[in-house]
Amino acid sequence: MTNKPTPVYLHLYERLSGQLRCGEIPPGQRLPSERQLAEELQISRMTARAAVDLLVQRGLVERRDRAGIYAARPKIEQRLSDAAGLSQQLLRRGVRPGARVLEKAKVRAGELPGEVTAALELRAADLAFKVMRVRTGDDEPLALEETYFPAERCAGLLNADLSGSVYGWLETHRGLKVGRSRQILEPSQLDAAAARLLSTHPNSPVLRVIRTAWTADGVPFEYARDLYRADRIQFVVETDNAWLAFEEPQ
Amino acid sequence: MTNKPTPVYLHLYERLSGQLRCGEIPPGQRLPSERQLAEELQISRMTARAAVDLLVQRGLVERRDRAGIYAARPKIEQRLSDAAGLSQQLLRRGVRPGARVLEKAKVRAGELPGEVTAALELRAADLAFKVMRVRTGDDEPLALEETYFPAERCAGLLNADLSGSVYGWLETHRGLKVGRSRQILEPSQLDAAAARLLSTHPNSPVLRVIRTAWTADGVPFEYARDLYRADRIQFVVETDNAWLAFEEPQ
Repeated sequence: MTNKPTPVYLHLYERLSGQLRCGEIPPGQRLPSERQLAEELQISRMTARAAVDLLVQRGLVERRDRAGIYAARPKIEQRLSDAAGLSQQLLRRGVRPGARVLEKAKVRAGELPGEVTAALELRAADLAFKVMRVRTGDDEPLALEETYFPAERCAGLLNADLSGSVYGWLETHRGLKVGRSRQILEPSQLDAAAARLLSTHPNSPVLRVIRTAWTADGVPFEYARDLYRADRIQFVVETDNAWLAFEEPQ
Repeated sequence: MTNKPTPVYLHLYERLSGQLRCGEIPPGQRLPSERQLAEELQISRMTARAAVDLLVQRGLVERRDRAGIYAARPKIEQRLSDAAGLSQQLLRRGVRPGARVLEKAKVRAGELPGEVTAALELRAADLAFKVMRVRTGDDEPLALEETYFPAERCAGLLNADLSGSVYGWLETHRGLKVGRSRQILEPSQLDAAAARLLSTHPNSPVLRVIRTAWTADGVPFEYARDLYRADRIQFVVETDNAWLAFEEPQ
């Protein structure tokens, strides 16, 4: 009903974010400092700072050195609605995937959190593989992965080259392929240890993705709790109901 | 390679989160205080606090009064992979949808941010409707919506009852139905004003969802920038490739 005037800092944010999103200010270019913005637009430094803070929070600009504000590099798109793994999605976008193994272990299911054993339909005596990796794109850390696999169905996985695509290995060597997946998304924050592993600030926004993957026959073969850097990755969900049109009554 | 011991606070977190997720500690039940946990397990108060902090951050428990820790109510599931609107998804889960209109206005496209006009394929002289609403479930605020519609294709929308489903109105009165959608997800934080509108704390985790919706014929008819309360909503993305199996070479 009301049509309240937009605050000045939001006007400035909208203008700059528009220029950044459409590429008018290209990635890596330095923006005017907060002081310069304030003088140029005859607004207070606090107002200029509020606009820049919002740009930083949305990942559109990065602060470097003391007063430098730079247009952020474009984010890497990750389609959560696509069953393809991270490696494959990076390759499609011309980014070289990599992984650094932090931990790999064979664990008795009884020692794992209940959510893991429930998702993988394991009994306490069954064995599972746990793999923790830092996933990279062009050598830049993008995600921290904590993944669990049923040892019986994934035999040999711990001896495979885990710096590559686990999905690729499972498909080639064990005939396991994602038929269905369910992902729960939780906006989250990094703790100091995870921030170090991801070479970023503890306050950086991250998305926690808790994923269960099944084969087309409904056999669960992966349970993952991943942390993705939201300042470097753009998460996309696409829906397409066009193919449903024939089945639905109009 | 290494198999580092799990920190004590993570052990405690895992135990409690497991009991909370499986319902062993039911929603609303009071948990032992940090002091009680520390004494019972012979750990430091700081360690107990770290575990509880993580439970709060993940939305599994809520702190009330001074030392009270309570199991959180279960979150409402929102399937981002489902083209159905929030109203319809709430109804399916037995939650009564509602909306409070904060602003409705007819705006010339030239005055809108470039991302809005680009998404809706508007020229500067075209008119658009802007609608800002607080979406509720059983009267509890769940999301803050900022939506734009092309005025020509959505004629009459501003005179409709906007406390209900806009998608429902558009389908019934204008024959517009989501055929395809693209959503960009950004973990975010609330500012003070948005927190007040959503009756929550400024530090609560939120998910910003930037959505464009098209008809099955590829005509864009909605551009939205929504903020969802991540402490009350569980975001789910499901993929199902089973129907693709026939088309893919094995």
